[in-house]
Amino acid sequence: MFGARVRDARMYANLTQQRVGELSGLARATIQEIESGRAAPTVDTVLLLADAIGVPPGVLFE
Amino acid sequence: MFGARVRDARMYANLTQQRVGELSGLARATIQEIESGRAAPTVDTVLLLADAIGVPPGVLFE
Repeated sequence: MFGARVRDARMYANLTQQRVGELSGLARATIQEIESGRAAPTVDTVLLLADAIGVPPGVLFE
Repeated sequence: MFGARVRDARMYANLTQQRVGELSGLARATIQEIESGRAAPTVDTVLLLADAIGVPPGVLFE
């Protein structure tokens, strides 16, 4: 699941949801919903998340 | 732009928008909008497109 990959990458980078929110401009609640699989982000949001976490976007699909 | 990568990958695979639509279950108009950048697909749609074109989803972000 995409959300689990985001959470794994975020935790591997030692970032909190709060911090990724600040870095990406996304609301913390949005990140929670994405990580839990309750929301399917658009490619634009994927790019914001990947950039904030510091990984290539493709990694979040592996 | 994500859409241009989808078009490049589709054309490299010698597939028409029509055929990718049939393979993915997406409407041809949706594929046209994504490729032209007028629509930002969700990760679920990205997975359908990548599968239909026959590439790993990450390739569409490179």
